[in-house]
Amino acid sequence: MSDFRQKALDYHAKPRPGKISVELTKPAESVTDLALAYSPGVAEPVREIAADPDAAYKYTAKGNMVAVISNGTAILGLGNLGPLASKPVMEGKALLFKRFAGLDSIDIEVKHRTTEEFITTVANIADTFGGINLEDIKAPECFEIEQELIKRCKVPVFHDDQHGTAIVTAAGMLNALEIQGKAIHDVTIVCMGAGAAAVACMELLIKCGAQRERIYMLDRKGVIHTRRDDLTPHKMLFANNTDKRTLEDVMEGADVFVGVSGPDVLPPAALSLMAENPIVFACSNPDPEIKPELAHAARKDLIMATGRSDYPNQVNNVLCFPFIFRGALDVRASAINDEMKVAAVEAIRSIAKEPVPAEVLAASQSDSLEFGRQYIIPKPMDPRLCQRVATAVAQAAIDSGVAGIESLPADYMQN
Amino acid sequence: MSDFRQKALDYHAKPRPGKISVELTKPAESVTDLALAYSPGVAEPVREIAADPDAAYKYTAKGNMVAVISNGTAILGLGNLGPLASKPVMEGKALLFKRFAGLDSIDIEVKHRTTEEFITTVANIADTFGGINLEDIKAPECFEIEQELIKRCKVPVFHDDQHGTAIVTAAGMLNALEIQGKAIHDVTIVCMGAGAAAVACMELLIKCGAQRERIYMLDRKGVIHTRRDDLTPHKMLFANNTDKRTLEDVMEGADVFVGVSGPDVLPPAALSLMAENPIVFACSNPDPEIKPELAHAARKDLIMATGRSDYPNQVNNVLCFPFIFRGALDVRASAINDEMKVAAVEAIRSIAKEPVPAEVLAASQSDSLEFGRQYIIPKPMDPRLCQRVATAVAQAAIDSGVAGIESLPADYMQN
Repeated sequence: MSDFRQKALDYHAKPRPGKISVELTKPAESVTDLALAYSPGVAEPVREIAADPDAAYKYTAKGNMVAVISNGTAILGLGNLGPLASKPVMEGKALLFKRFAGLDSIDIEVKHRTTEEFITTVANIADTFGGINLEDIKAPECFEIEQELIKRCKVPVFHDDQHGTAIVTAAGMLNALEIQGKAIHDVTIVCMGAGAAAVACMELLIKCGAQRERIYMLDRKGVIHTRRDDLTPHKMLFANNTDKRTLEDVMEGADVFVGVSGPDVLPPAALSLMAENPIVFACSNPDPEIKPELAHAARKDLIMATGRSDYPNQVNNVLCFPFIFRGALDVRASAINDEMKVAAVEAIRSIAKEPVPAEVLAASQSDSLEFGRQYIIPKPMDPRLCQRVATAVAQAAIDSGVAGIESLPADYMQN
Repeated sequence: MSDFRQKALDYHAKPRPGKISVELTKPAESVTDLALAYSPGVAEPVREIAADPDAAYKYTAKGNMVAVISNGTAILGLGNLGPLASKPVMEGKALLFKRFAGLDSIDIEVKHRTTEEFITTVANIADTFGGINLEDIKAPECFEIEQELIKRCKVPVFHDDQHGTAIVTAAGMLNALEIQGKAIHDVTIVCMGAGAAAVACMELLIKCGAQRERIYMLDRKGVIHTRRDDLTPHKMLFANNTDKRTLEDVMEGADVFVGVSGPDVLPPAALSLMAENPIVFACSNPDPEIKPELAHAARKDLIMATGRSDYPNQVNNVLCFPFIFRGALDVRASAINDEMKVAAVEAIRSIAKEPVPAEVLAASQSDSLEFGRQYIIPKPMDPRLCQRVATAVAQAAIDSGVAGIESLPADYMQN
């Protein structure tokens, strides 16, 4: 067994199994404590909530609690291994929510027969939590699941594989375009992959100004075009009225390549076809669509991002999801809408343009990080993320009318 | 607002809402930590669990995690106030699991249209947890719900309102009978109330030796007898072939009264009708079926128990549920069967016969507690409960073939 593999298993098994526990936030030692925590005292908050459901935010843990929910149909890059096998990932996500944003988070793994049954199961338990983070659910079911749950739930529902990826990608992309001197309205984009993340990334780039007709999306069969008759509804949205059919066809003159597909599918020769000052986001993890060494050898004028922590410009969902939920829950948002997503994009990208705190340099083992080709996006350990992204998201929720409170407290995120 | 009411609300609201949080049990500071906790390290336990579902007990928090699940249809004595209003109670139960047995526990409130939908929802999420504690679900639906979930789930499912109450009642009752010099096989029992707790209490007393034909159960319409045509299946099991119709009819010569109904429904005059050395368990909470002062005034030879902490002999579910789950989870039991319930009864009652530790006297604000009419059952703060009940339950699970391990570790519960 490899050393890393053994370390990962030991980390999960010792000294106790798993990564999270439930702890008490109130005294529970004396008979008096217990009379307040349980019978008879607990009847008082019960009555308050029965009279006004919003009182649940005042008297229970709901308002700081995020459920991480999966059916295990698309676990990391490992595929459909079922709900129970996804548990370490979902606990890991709960750990990240706590570590980065102070949110209490618990994983729920759901088995189900039909998509409708999954939706009903989650909708039925949703009121327990302040928000629902859907995770590792395969396409195309994930689209219907998220849309239907957004309709049925009073709390925000967010499929991180789609929108977390899209937000971080958009933040990095807008900065990369700025550095390369390109306007998002003008660029030609090649998107390799047509799954949940790919669709969400392209939709968000369009909201940020990209032109749908300048996007070429590819699935396993090549370019998605209007004369294909095998397209799901979500692929149909990206069917391009074009004669181009192959990766080489669309890479010719392209400004941007976004890979959310699989390892080593982008040959270096294809990079030579791109326009000047190209941008390549090779997000397949752990093995990107093209190795950064090969890409940089092929194009000196390149900006490149990957999903990996051991190269510059890591596209990492943890830059977004803890903080978008932090902001949404802090204002009791009923949804995470486009305005909040765009606010998160802008907050994340703005941090990369500012001087980097010493602690981030230390954690990143870097001497310096300066906005430019090697640093288009903040590092996951950047402590400014929580305050800045959560504040921007919370304010956007208020401004767009989905918040349960009217204004942010003056001291919000000041500690 | 009364002082206690305000204290109870403040306890739940300040300094932060609710009573529980989720915390990390593993380091999550450095980039290295996070590479083990999440991608890429987390893929290793995922693969292990995909290959062997039991590995979930080794690499995730499942084996120490109990879900407290309710639909809020019978909240304490407050009735059907809906799932969200039940949340403070369910969080309180989670708090008790942690406080008394070190179990991680999270509440889940379920909304649903049909009983089948509730069952499916819970069954679909059950594998997330090591066990399911159902709570505050009204009769008669609770019977079908529990039975069906036991069939569908691989982890133990236990409706505490039924079986927790039954176990503690049986423990106290067997001790009371011993003190009064009565054999359980011979006694006549009046059971006032025919809900979930009443049915479970009588069934467990029968398993401990009581004769079904010597039990008289009463609902709102009086004695449940074989000539009534309005009985649910569960009441039918207690239909007595008798001419007795009223409370007075059945109290005549009765040895035992068990009340799981409502306040002040037992007139002192009815006590005068009972046999010598009678036993009255008036468990309606907070107001018992008869006030202890009135009962003792009516019968000097009485043993009396209530649900209240401010009188002797408190029948309190917390004597049982944390520890029966502790034992069940520690041996990965697939169910909580009758053998385990009876083992819990015996373990609880045996503790009351032994000298009481000084710390229990202090917590109970008592000078002495000696097995007898004023002390038939241990105090909730007794630290011997966890070790003794969990060990007895775990061993019974192994002996009855529902455990996932073959023997208890030699040092089990030695710390």
